[in-house]
Amino acid sequence: MPGNSFGQNFRITTCGESHGKAISVIIDGCPPQLPLNESMIQVMMDRRKPGSSAASTKRKEPDHVSIMSGVFEGKTTGTPILIMIENKDADPRAYSKNVQLFRPGHGDITYTAKYGIRDWRGGGRASARETAARVAAGAVAMILLNQYDIHIYAYTLCLGGVVATQRDFSVIHQNPYGSPDLEAALLMEKRVAEVKAKGDSLGGIVEIVAQGVPMGLGEPVFDKLDADLAKALMSVGAVKGVEIGAGFACAQLLGSENNDPIMSNGFQQNNAGGILAGISNGDDIVVRVAVKPIPSIIIEQDTIDHQKQPHRISTQGRHDISAIPRINVVLEAMTAIVIADHLLRQQTLQLNKPPCYFEL
Amino acid sequence: MPGNSFGQNFRITTCGESHGKAISVIIDGCPPQLPLNESMIQVMMDRRKPGSSAASTKRKEPDHVSIMSGVFEGKTTGTPILIMIENKDADPRAYSKNVQLFRPGHGDITYTAKYGIRDWRGGGRASARETAARVAAGAVAMILLNQYDIHIYAYTLCLGGVVATQRDFSVIHQNPYGSPDLEAALLMEKRVAEVKAKGDSLGGIVEIVAQGVPMGLGEPVFDKLDADLAKALMSVGAVKGVEIGAGFACAQLLGSENNDPIMSNGFQQNNAGGILAGISNGDDIVVRVAVKPIPSIIIEQDTIDHQKQPHRISTQGRHDISAIPRINVVLEAMTAIVIADHLLRQQTLQLNKPPCYFEL
Amino acid sequence: MPGNSFGQNFRITTCGESHGKAISVIIDGCPPQLPLNESMIQVMMDRRKPGSSAASTKRKEPDHVSIMSGVFEGKTTGTPILIMIENKDADPRAYSKNVQLFRPGHGDITYTAKYGIRDWRGGGRASARETAARVAAGAVAMILLNQYDIHIYAYTLCLGGVVATQRDFSVIHQNPYGSPDLEAALLMEKRVAEVKAKGDSLGGIVEIVAQGVPMGLGEPVFDKLDADLAKALMSVGAVKGVEIGAGFACAQLLGSENNDPIMSNGFQQNNAGGILAGISNGDDIVVRVAVKPIPSIIIEQDTIDHQKQPHRISTQGRHDISAIPRINVVLEAMTAIVIADHLLRQQTLQLNKPPCYFEL
Amino acid sequence: MPGNSFGQNFRITTCGESHGKAISVIIDGCPPQLPLNESMIQVMMDRRKPGSSAASTKRKEPDHVSIMSGVFEGKTTGTPILIMIENKDADPRAYSKNVQLFRPGHGDITYTAKYGIRDWRGGGRASARETAARVAAGAVAMILLNQYDIHIYAYTLCLGGVVATQRDFSVIHQNPYGSPDLEAALLMEKRVAEVKAKGDSLGGIVEIVAQGVPMGLGEPVFDKLDADLAKALMSVGAVKGVEIGAGFACAQLLGSENNDPIMSNGFQQNNAGGILAGISNGDDIVVRVAVKPIPSIIIEQDTIDHQKQPHRISTQGRHDISAIPRINVVLEAMTAIVIADHLLRQQTLQLNKPPCYFEL
Repeated sequence: MPGNSFGQNFRITTCGESHGKAISVIIDGCPPQLPLNESMIQVMMDRRKPGSSAASTKRKEPDHVSIMSGVFEGKTTGTPILIMIENKDADPRAYSKNVQLFRPGHGDITYTAKYGIRDWRGGGRASARETAARVAAGAVAMILLNQYDIHIYAYTLCLGGVVATQRDFSVIHQNPYGSPDLEAALLMEKRVAEVKAKGDSLGGIVEIVAQGVPMGLGEPVFDKLDADLAKALMSVGAVKGVEIGAGFACAQLLGSENNDPIMSNGFQQNNAGGILAGISNGDDIVVRVAVKPIPSIIIEQDTIDHQKQPHRISTQGRHDISAIPRINVVLEAMTAIVIADHLLRQQTLQLNKPPCYFEL
Repeated sequence: MPGNSFGQNFRITTCGESHGKAISVIIDGCPPQLPLNESMIQVMMDRRKPGSSAASTKRKEPDHVSIMSGVFEGKTTGTPILIMIENKDADPRAYSKNVQLFRPGHGDITYTAKYGIRDWRGGGRASARETAARVAAGAVAMILLNQYDIHIYAYTLCLGGVVATQRDFSVIHQNPYGSPDLEAALLMEKRVAEVKAKGDSLGGIVEIVAQGVPMGLGEPVFDKLDADLAKALMSVGAVKGVEIGAGFACAQLLGSENNDPIMSNGFQQNNAGGILAGISNGDDIVVRVAVKPIPSIIIEQDTIDHQKQPHRISTQGRHDISAIPRINVVLEAMTAIVIADHLLRQQTLQLNKPPCYFEL
Repeated sequence: MPGNSFGQNFRITTCGESHGKAISVIIDGCPPQLPLNESMIQVMMDRRKPGSSAASTKRKEPDHVSIMSGVFEGKTTGTPILIMIENKDADPRAYSKNVQLFRPGHGDITYTAKYGIRDWRGGGRASARETAARVAAGAVAMILLNQYDIHIYAYTLCLGGVVATQRDFSVIHQNPYGSPDLEAALLMEKRVAEVKAKGDSLGGIVEIVAQGVPMGLGEPVFDKLDADLAKALMSVGAVKGVEIGAGFACAQLLGSENNDPIMSNGFQQNNAGGILAGISNGDDIVVRVAVKPIPSIIIEQDTIDHQKQPHRISTQGRHDISAIPRINVVLEAMTAIVIADHLLRQQTLQLNKPPCYFEL
Repeated sequence: MPGNSFGQNFRITTCGESHGKAISVIIDGCPPQLPLNESMIQVMMDRRKPGSSAASTKRKEPDHVSIMSGVFEGKTTGTPILIMIENKDADPRAYSKNVQLFRPGHGDITYTAKYGIRDWRGGGRASARETAARVAAGAVAMILLNQYDIHIYAYTLCLGGVVATQRDFSVIHQNPYGSPDLEAALLMEKRVAEVKAKGDSLGGIVEIVAQGVPMGLGEPVFDKLDADLAKALMSVGAVKGVEIGAGFACAQLLGSENNDPIMSNGFQQNNAGGILAGISNGDDIVVRVAVKPIPSIIIEQDTIDHQKQPHRISTQGRHDISAIPRINVVLEAMTAIVIADHLLRQQTLQLNKPPCYFEL
């Protein structure tokens, strides 16, 4: 099966290239009768737009979403929902001189090996612009999750070595770096400016927390909730690591430290990150992802062309300095899609009469 | 879709509980004419058996594999292969006194929430015994990969805080901890003995390297090779984190440091871990996973029963002190399954005549 | 994706060859807490066994089912259920002389073209013995459907030109031909004897009726209930046609005749066969399938060997004269599996809280 | 999994309603480097347009296709292809007075039962307009099949009782009824005129022939080539039956008549319809489908409203008198999609090196 679909019962299929006509997504399996309109989706799309942060690209896409199917009189109908985001500010000229060169850290060389042809304009399908479709789909998932009082937060835990030590969710959207710690945000600002001046780029760590997820979501043994989250998040370009709860730190812990003792009112701690044996345990789901530095940098680097001749390359397009914080909403979206999918999957584990909205 | 299948074109479906009759796997999609017999599989199975390491359980399962279908006269026929491993040393008595208690760090409580019923004998489906099926399937995948000269190594990078600093693949199977560093192995031995004496358990980090993977494997955008690896590995019980190449370390790097410059004879370094934009780049694929300490410990911990009454619990079954090193071969198996699947997926990207072995 | 799985949420994967060790099926997605034991499955298996009818083979398989996983203390646990049926009366000697010949009407030649290797013993994977796994899975589906008061009947409408004109469900199991018309059964008996004496074989038509299916099952646009039934039934060896409701007869009807007018208490007639726009309408679901004559006949026929040399062949194995009536229970099983799957799929179309059987 | 996707390796996902903004399809898995542009698709789309036949609707849709992704410089890139067909002549006014009434023979009542909400404009998702997406995807499949010299013909075998006795493929597109028999076409014309004058509608039978399909396509046991064709064709609205080769007629045949003897240069006859044991045998694939009369008729019929009150209804929209011949190209498209999918699936059954278009 080809690789542009994700999810089993809440299932998305995306398409589109950076400088093609549009980025689109079909959402199939969304339950009927859910209130949905374009402005509800737009709110989340706007969080992905290049903002005021110094880390962001100069490409200005309005990212206006159009619902092309599946919604009638403000509600989902149960039929597939196509959301389209037209590319308005596509400008392939900046890329044309690098057609023959493989940019280090990019998929140019691997797409060529895989397909023997590639849309070289702005990275084509491998561009982060692809994630616009994920966010649109994630917005729909989020609206579904809101029906169950599930809320998801993604925030910058670390950017270019600057670590947030506070976790104040109320300030995440009050600073341009998605930091839950305003003091850290100031230091991030400074770090970004330094690195930008040198024509270089920065990596970081994003933490995602899902609150209100009921117990019981996740399908043993391969489609565990954490396994699906790992895939969903690792599938986002620039992500190189995913950990749940204590994550890599639990390699240093003893069992007596790592286990979360159980009390009648809940778990005493949350090293599990809200997931036990692949199934949600009712506690907060906590995931962290490692984000690599944007590979497009002005500093010159070694590369080759299609004929394997050596070259020096400096990538001059309109790029972010870091995928953070724009990636945060993408990670939030993917988390929402995974949880929405597993909510629907859990519905099938019952012997009750399925919904029937009219009977003769 | 239920969660006990994995892979698209090389597809496995597993079943079986810790103390049920058998652990089994159906492999569907394995190409025909591949040499296969039980002893070829048994070699890999034997590496999963509790060995001489002090970290291992006392349960002695011969783990004898039986091929029940799909093989004829020593070769695969293209029809589904059922491999069965009977449970011989099942002894649920050790567990019976804890029927009503939820063991901390285990899936007892989440399975109860999800299904309302659970096979409490030795963890039932949530037991690590489930991984026997993964290893059997992985052995078949490995035999397929050998046809392409692809080799996979999994080894203990860290156990209980002891870190291997050498990476000598030739010694991995010459010490009971799967360490690529014999000096580290001695320290691991000591660390395990200390912790075992206290009735506690240990976590660690396993690194997996795949050599010889051709360029071009991995399906954008959701079924990226690293995304599928992340899912495959995170789906193994006890794994709490997965990172590719530089992984979480790349959060601290600059773009100019993290990018792997390209030369006509290959990449100058391998921070990418052999995967660019979700597609293999021909370099070694390098993945690390975080393994949590075995949750079954003799030290008493707080828990509750099905009626939410508080209890103290000490888990006295036959358990390993650490999932490492027995988990190593499981991780190797899952890696092999992912790569085998993507090899077959890549076959579909051609306009050549498909195989036809007889023509009128 | 390989072809040995069927269903989305109630999903089966089968394996096994005619003269291999066993025929098996894994059922994944069956809801937990459903009462299930081997004798409940055996009842349906026994209906597939070669019976007293003159049309049946002399091969005597006890077809004893063993539940190998997924059931605990008489109930399903939500984990995958493996059912195994060992081959006891395998006797490949009868086939050995035809190893090199392609039997007309059989898959010998196409399996050779597809795989370049085949288990020639009794047809291998292409044998009707494969359907034992379908019936075992269908029995589980039927037990699930009984919870919803859904009942399925499959019966012989036509055998060797003899047509049943009565549809008395109470007599279906009172005659060896599965006929709902006892008079027709006597004529079928006579027809079978004639044809058997000549070393030839017979085709026929089976009708399947599902009663009690609620409105609303079926997924537009590709997974329509009738589309899934068509696939399920056509996938049974020997089936060459499937029709729903009026079926091919509606090619001759006017719209005013074919449409089923709607009254407040139901439809005035049932040309639709209980399915409108791919979704069940609450009326009886009515499907008919065409069954080709068993291709194994004693009468000599032209064929070739692997080197394309001409031969005459007479197939002397232990065969039925007609796939009817043993195929009837297989068709019933496949129908049950499709409806069970769509019942679970319909569960996902709701915004209610999914089941959670324990909460902290 | 939701129901708007079809195929495994050549996989389509469709969306859109009759009077929504657009009908669209994403094709995922199409191999790279295949020449493709909009005019190549348009040729096939134009065959679906209401033509000069008296049987056709007055709704005039240009059905102009736009390729929105997946194609670069006239070739497929291996990334998903979105094709969009905007609805231009949508006019829901004709339907508004029937909002509350369930049209007999339509999905109005079953969609209401399933989803509790429906886009009533022109049938919404249940409209035959949905098939525009199938034809667009089928055009791409056909272009792929042409690379293998596979050709598909769909033609009217029977319309309103008038049977074509000739099968002259060269005249299929030379008459407005898609008849392979020009004399029959004249009688069909007459029959359509009669029925149209009475405000009624007609059913018929379409035959589809695929030539040049290589031996070996089709996946035992559930995804047999005929099983997938049955599903693909039955999933088209108005189809009520599917038969392969001799089909229902083989119920009357003896084994000695029905079996196709094998000679060194091919099969002596083709009762199998080109498929043995679910796998193509190299002969022509021959399938017939039963098409029910268009349910929208001017003649009044009984129905009810959402409150179960009785009404008389006459459907006055812009409708065809028969789904034939516009459905023919849809059936051809679905056949092409199935064969394309199985061509790619067969690619995975080899141990050769998969394609790699650039190597370091």
